[in-house]
Amino acid sequence: MRKHTISVLVENQFGVLAKVAGMFSARGYNIESLSVAETLDPTISRMTIVTRGDDQIIEQITKHLNKLVPVIKVSDLTGTAHIDREMALIKVEAKEKNRAEILRIAEIFRGKILDVSPTSFVIEVTGDDEKIAAFIALLKPLGIKEVGRSGKVAMGRGSKTTD
Amino acid sequence: MRKHTISVLVENQFGVLAKVAGMFSARGYNIESLSVAETLDPTISRMTIVTRGDDQIIEQITKHLNKLVPVIKVSDLTGTAHIDREMALIKVEAKEKNRAEILRIAEIFRGKILDVSPTSFVIEVTGDDEKIAAFIALLKPLGIKEVGRSGKVAMGRGSKTTD
Repeated sequence: MRKHTISVLVENQFGVLAKVAGMFSARGYNIESLSVAETLDPTISRMTIVTRGDDQIIEQITKHLNKLVPVIKVSDLTGTAHIDREMALIKVEAKEKNRAEILRIAEIFRGKILDVSPTSFVIEVTGDDEKIAAFIALLKPLGIKEVGRSGKVAMGRGSKTTD
Repeated sequence: MRKHTISVLVENQFGVLAKVAGMFSARGYNIESLSVAETLDPTISRMTIVTRGDDQIIEQITKHLNKLVPVIKVSDLTGTAHIDREMALIKVEAKEKNRAEILRIAEIFRGKILDVSPTSFVIEVTGDDEKIAAFIALLKPLGIKEVGRSGKVAMGRGSKTTD
C-alpha cells in the first residue's frame, strides 16, 4: 500500500471538491492529505491528493477522477521525478530555559519564526514528510501546543508541466 | 462578502472530507481554498477552509459544521489575532538573460530554489495572500509555467490554542 501523490487540475466551479471527495468516499478510497487552491488561471484549481493503494487501486482512482466532469487532468506523480512539499505551522511552548534551543532547532531547519509571545513561538517549516517529522520530533519534548499542516503540494521536476 | 478563515478539527475518519465538502456544496456555500492534514494526534485532522460570506452566512456555516458528526471544534479565526499563511511552488522559465533576475526576486521574497533545469526553476515561497500575489506578479512577465498552492494554514497568535 504505497503512498501516491496525485495532482488533479479541475475547473474552479461550485461543488467540485464535494464531487472529488465524494468519489473517494463512495468507493472506499482514503485521502491522507488534500490541498486545493487556484492556479494562475483563476478558473482552474489544482488539487494535490495523497492516498495509499496498490497499482490497481491507483489506476481505478485515476480512471474515476478522469470521469468526473470538472476534472481537466489527472497526473500520478509517484515514480516520476517530482518535488513533494508541505508547510507546517508549529506552536511550541517557549519556557525561558528552552527559548535558545528552540531558536537553534528552527535555524537548522530553516524555519521562520512567525509569532513570539512570552510563553510561545509559532514556527513555520517547509519540506518533505521526513523533514517535517524530524522537526516535530525534536520540538515535541519541549512542548508542542498546536500543529497545522498544509497537506502536500507537488510538482514535476524540470521544465515540463502537468497543466 | 468578507473572506473568512475557518479552522476545523475533525476526527480522522473515513469520509470526513466528503461530509464537510458535501455540506458546503449542498447548502450553496463556496470553498475558496481548503487544506487538510493530520495534527500531532494522528486520529485528529485539521482543516483550514477559506470561504466568503456575510456574518449571517458564516454563522450558518459554523453551525452546520458543528452538527457534523466527525467535527470536534470549529473556530472562525477572522477578526482574531492570527497567522494566515500559504505555500506556493512556482515553476518559472529560466532563460539565460532572466536567470539572475529570477534569483534576485526569489531572494527578496525569501524564496527557496527547489529545482533547477537548463530552462526552468521551481521556487517555493510562503506568506500571506498579498505576498504570494506580489511574488507571482513579479515573475509573471518572465514566464510562469506552473503554480501549485497549498491553500491557507491558519493559527491563532499567542499561546492559546484552537485545539
